[in-house]
Amino acid sequence: MITVALAKGALLKGSVSRFAKAGLDFSTVLDPDNRQLMVPSICGRARALLVRNGDVPVYVAYGQAQLGVVGFDVLSEKQMQLAHLIDLGFGGCRMSVAVKESSGYRRAIDLPPHCRVASKFTHCARTYFDKIDLPVELVHLTGSVELGPITGMAEAIVDLVATGRTLRDNGLISIEDLFHSSARLVGNPLALRMDVGELQSIVDLIRSEE
Amino acid sequence: MITVALAKGALLKGSVSRFAKAGLDFSTVLDPDNRQLMVPSICGRARALLVRNGDVPVYVAYGQAQLGVVGFDVLSEKQMQLAHLIDLGFGGCRMSVAVKESSGYRRAIDLPPHCRVASKFTHCARTYFDKIDLPVELVHLTGSVELGPITGMAEAIVDLVATGRTLRDNGLISIEDLFHSSARLVGNPLALRMDVGELQSIVDLIRSEE
Repeated sequence: MITVALAKGALLKGSVSRFAKAGLDFSTVLDPDNRQLMVPSICGRARALLVRNGDVPVYVAYGQAQLGVVGFDVLSEKQMQLAHLIDLGFGGCRMSVAVKESSGYRRAIDLPPHCRVASKFTHCARTYFDKIDLPVELVHLTGSVELGPITGMAEAIVDLVATGRTLRDNGLISIEDLFHSSARLVGNPLALRMDVGELQSIVDLIRSEE
Repeated sequence: MITVALAKGALLKGSVSRFAKAGLDFSTVLDPDNRQLMVPSICGRARALLVRNGDVPVYVAYGQAQLGVVGFDVLSEKQMQLAHLIDLGFGGCRMSVAVKESSGYRRAIDLPPHCRVASKFTHCARTYFDKIDLPVELVHLTGSVELGPITGMAEAIVDLVATGRTLRDNGLISIEDLFHSSARLVGNPLALRMDVGELQSIVDLIRSEE
């Protein structure tokens, strides 16, 4: 049976709608009363694993799901062995460096060497600051990263920015983008290689919608 | 001004009630309509940072908060430089090894060498399996760890167990405890050393309630 790992939260509705067009109806997962984490498709030939964002790459990489939908931000942070199949286009946002508006920093390179940068995405942040050759001390946080600069713990943050409202509400501004992120269809490399056509036909149908 | 880091979620009510008895009223944070992450106490001489569980040790270790309340589970996982001040007693739970009931494993040492163990607490799990000298492959998940054994990705999990209901609902049983966890009052070591009595009097008042 085909198993698909879907991320709870902002990408779920878009993920379900793309699979629906490929003939797999997982709309049960959108029911607010649904408590199941493993949900069969209406047709019964597939099932969805409903997991947190960061766990989608894990279930696909370990082969418990053959396909998965997750943001490019998570894929960049997790660095697991996955086949990147399709940029699905929805769920767009930017991974940005942001600072207090009052700080005067207007480019990442303006930040003082060895300053602190708070982020949920410390791997992405490390790669970026290495690339611009600026040594910084990264502080890993799991939520509300904007508190870093507000409390004075960090000079800057690296975080996802969608509308920019959270930044504005907290007196922060984005000064540099690391990359643009959107939802991606990923696959387990071995499952794709062993596929006798079933996975490929789903991937083709999802791709043809674009 | 004294800043206290409080964990959102299950420990929040107990944390607020213990500080209230020490004269610091943070009850505003319990208001479901509260959206602020930095909340002044009613008396105005202190403020609370409302952060995720895993971020409490970070804000206290970096000195943005002088005191914090967080579970021993998080302290064990994060391993930051903090003064452990008081076991507050509430928020009790166990860090346990659990397996599928149908698996037949009844002690951690029964698990096959090099099997996979899924956990949000991979540092705690690593320390434990090293101690019992059983080599395992740890898979880090961020939520719904019980899906690990259900999907066949992992033979066992290491997770927090409070009532045991999540395990039962998923056909899992706890077979071994790593440690018992409860809420702890922690402090920034330097702030405590530089303290002219203000912090100590709060700690003493909280301790005297026991």
